[in-house]
Amino acid sequence: MTGVKKINHVAVVVADIDAALAFWQDALGLELHHVEDVPSQKATVAFLPVGDSEVELVKPTTDDSGVAKFLAERGGGMHHLCFEVDDIAAKLAEMKAKGVRLINETPIELPGRKMAFIHPKSTGGVLVELYEVT
Amino acid sequence: MTGVKKINHVAVVVADIDAALAFWQDALGLELHHVEDVPSQKATVAFLPVGDSEVELVKPTTDDSGVAKFLAERGGGMHHLCFEVDDIAAKLAEMKAKGVRLINETPIELPGRKMAFIHPKSTGGVLVELYEVT
Repeated sequence: MTGVKKINHVAVVVADIDAALAFWQDALGLELHHVEDVPSQKATVAFLPVGDSEVELVKPTTDDSGVAKFLAERGGGMHHLCFEVDDIAAKLAEMKAKGVRLINETPIELPGRKMAFIHPKSTGGVLVELYEVT
Repeated sequence: MTGVKKINHVAVVVADIDAALAFWQDALGLELHHVEDVPSQKATVAFLPVGDSEVELVKPTTDDSGVAKFLAERGGGMHHLCFEVDDIAAKLAEMKAKGVRLINETPIELPGRKMAFIHPKSTGGVLVELYEVT
């Protein structure tokens, strides 16, 4: 079976990056690597590495994205859990053969990475992302 | 500031351990370390190490625990995010001084570990656990 290397990141939806950093950086003590506008995700993201993973604070920048709807309906909180894999295409094929419902049947390709989401209906309620460094 | 070492675990509340393992172990491909009854948490927990962290699948064994209420109200999903720290007492004191609302002002001490929860009101909606290996 294709390997899962680590938790790449845990994504937390927030209403306000600065207010969120008052907890995650100033009180909890995580290091802030950088804050980046990510137009493809319609979000501003703060990256806080910890161990071999990251916490990503995701603030929607429009009203029509999945994270914007999550924030409007449920308030801030954990949004998805991302695992880094060796071979995302092989992993998606394995999952599909096992009847797992995929949001992305083929990976989204971006510079330096490929990513795909698994539907929470197949995971017991967790939005799972797979991520391959390319 | 007292250091945060890594994500110790991400806890996922599940209704059925075997059904959950059909995804997390069989389809995603995480290694199952062991399944353990944890009476102090009124839960059965499956431990799946990945990278320097773990996914913990938590099935409530009574109706009156926090995880049982979470499952009844929201269904399965991510429940809390646990960070391993060097010195939990110092970290809690730092947080309290910064006005963070703590669920446990003094750590719960168990063999080999100390743990405490931070209230989601202070984190932007995430139940955060701190964990020190002793």
